[in-house]
Amino acid sequence: MNRERPTVALTMGDPAGVGPEILVGAWTHPELLREARPVALGHPEILRRAARLWKLEAEVKEIDSVDEAAPSETVLPCLRCGTDDVLEVKPGTIDARAGQAAYDAVVAGARLALNGEVDAVTTAPLHKEALHLAGHRYPGHTELLAELCGVDDFAMMLYLGAESPNALRGGLAVVHVTLHTALHNVFEELNEESVLAKARLADRFMTRLNGQRPRVGVCALNPHGGEGGLFGTEERTIIRPAIDRGRAEGMDLDGPFPADTLMVHARDGRYDAVVAMYHDQGHIALKLLGMHRAVNVTLGLPIIRTSVAHGTAFDLAWQGKAEVRSMIEAVRVASRLAASSRQ
Amino acid sequence: MNRERPTVALTMGDPAGVGPEILVGAWTHPELLREARPVALGHPEILRRAARLWKLEAEVKEIDSVDEAAPSETVLPCLRCGTDDVLEVKPGTIDARAGQAAYDAVVAGARLALNGEVDAVTTAPLHKEALHLAGHRYPGHTELLAELCGVDDFAMMLYLGAESPNALRGGLAVVHVTLHTALHNVFEELNEESVLAKARLADRFMTRLNGQRPRVGVCALNPHGGEGGLFGTEERTIIRPAIDRGRAEGMDLDGPFPADTLMVHARDGRYDAVVAMYHDQGHIALKLLGMHRAVNVTLGLPIIRTSVAHGTAFDLAWQGKAEVRSMIEAVRVASRLAASSRQ
Repeated sequence: MNRERPTVALTMGDPAGVGPEILVGAWTHPELLREARPVALGHPEILRRAARLWKLEAEVKEIDSVDEAAPSETVLPCLRCGTDDVLEVKPGTIDARAGQAAYDAVVAGARLALNGEVDAVTTAPLHKEALHLAGHRYPGHTELLAELCGVDDFAMMLYLGAESPNALRGGLAVVHVTLHTALHNVFEELNEESVLAKARLADRFMTRLNGQRPRVGVCALNPHGGEGGLFGTEERTIIRPAIDRGRAEGMDLDGPFPADTLMVHARDGRYDAVVAMYHDQGHIALKLLGMHRAVNVTLGLPIIRTSVAHGTAFDLAWQGKAEVRSMIEAVRVASRLAASSRQ
Repeated sequence: MNRERPTVALTMGDPAGVGPEILVGAWTHPELLREARPVALGHPEILRRAARLWKLEAEVKEIDSVDEAAPSETVLPCLRCGTDDVLEVKPGTIDARAGQAAYDAVVAGARLALNGEVDAVTTAPLHKEALHLAGHRYPGHTELLAELCGVDDFAMMLYLGAESPNALRGGLAVVHVTLHTALHNVFEELNEESVLAKARLADRFMTRLNGQRPRVGVCALNPHGGEGGLFGTEERTIIRPAIDRGRAEGMDLDGPFPADTLMVHARDGRYDAVVAMYHDQGHIALKLLGMHRAVNVTLGLPIIRTSVAHGTAFDLAWQGKAEVRSMIEAVRVASRLAASSRQ
């Protein structure tokens, strides 16, 4: 790979959901082609349906290798994955054939990235139950990709690009120390090492994305940051020591701060990244700040992988109503990470 | 009391903090006098200093009883509370004399309201440590007022007034099932009764404020609302049964919903009130949505009491920089609640 624009493989996602239409819908935005050389992975006929849904003049052109791809606003090069079974899948339904198709595209994307045929992979949403019905029992993309890449130390980060140039230096990244677990399990997963590990991931990601070390704000776990021990002690016993160690490593860490205050400061540009202690702490803020443009980035893989931050949205799939902003942002972040990796 | 505008007693708060200046600063906003007949409780000389700070021509006029009060944009009637000790207090310092002065004003306000001499009390912030130094060991206003009123079933609610008429029907109220406690204590305080009790408070408050029954959204505790039991069971065992009981009582309750999604819907006007399970769940959203105009309302008292939602802000006290919006809103909400009580 040594082209000007990084080559990004876009997986189709579950064809019963909004994946195909956001893939094709994003294509027409000039930003996408300016920043990346996109190649679609999926069934060409599904993508043609999506193009008709958006009433696009674009041709979905089937190719045999990435080298042939010459994407433009009117040509969508597509590497075929999966079987014709998928053409029978009904929109908005959980279907093993759709789960298989989504799986095939992800596997193809990971393989291309591992082989160096593409610079990055951006995935459209898959449906967990459809994936399971197809016999692939992964909680989601992240774990599937980790297995395909042979790693077990990875993390999910959410990144919100700057909406206006004067609002944020270069967007806001939020990494969660604990994520998809019951709130009462947070306490056993939270320790000095796990906080420090996520702070390091946030630090490395934003350094790579922006070319400078980020200012990282670390959330407290308890209300009012524990109110001097009155409302909990994790700030003193876990989070503060992790911050001290991170600073000794050279990171620009600040906190622990009460999460409600920290999120306002992060929105106002005082921080480039936030370490949240649990799912809702980060997600309440991210959704209010604009989840429709948030990007999900998998950290710790040997390949670059980004994703939209939303799901298959079966309730509005194939109606031409899906929001394509997150897909465009996901490709842009993938391209920028790929470009910075070449340096 | 049977005047057109409700009479609202405004307590000065801790004189080392922003209390006096927000009290006096809010006075000059026409909205305040249009909606209420405000009477200040505190030391007149402190309020004169605040008037000079804002470079106001207003006269702080000491009165002996509420009946004498004839507030206008140039006259601030003040019932003197406390001693001259308070004149020595330095801005931004924790001082027992300041704690005592704040205490005296609250006690005076509660007495006037209980006697029916004023229709409502709006309090400026006090400093907990100064209050403690003065020998009054209450966690804050709420508990002090509850004791003065002889009640032990009360709750704190935050209310965010509508910023634009088409955004929200009549503002957004957030009530917390658990509040000032460590996150790991949330689980023992959360039960069907406590969730239902807070839903009832939200329902009654908004019915009284808006004259119609509110649409109340109830947060889940766990990420993704528990993901069908995979990430916790409190949604099924506690929150859902509480919602069912509340609906049987006639309330318009909806949920449990993942908090991150619910807060976006609440912002977009789908709900008039939200029941949050713990402090940060409500506060992260409220602060991002505009805490500077949020009002704190104590529910369950025999008197009407509102407050600004922020603290003493020692770091910016007496610099003429304090935001008066929350104080204006607090008086407006108090007036509206008082007006609705007369009907």
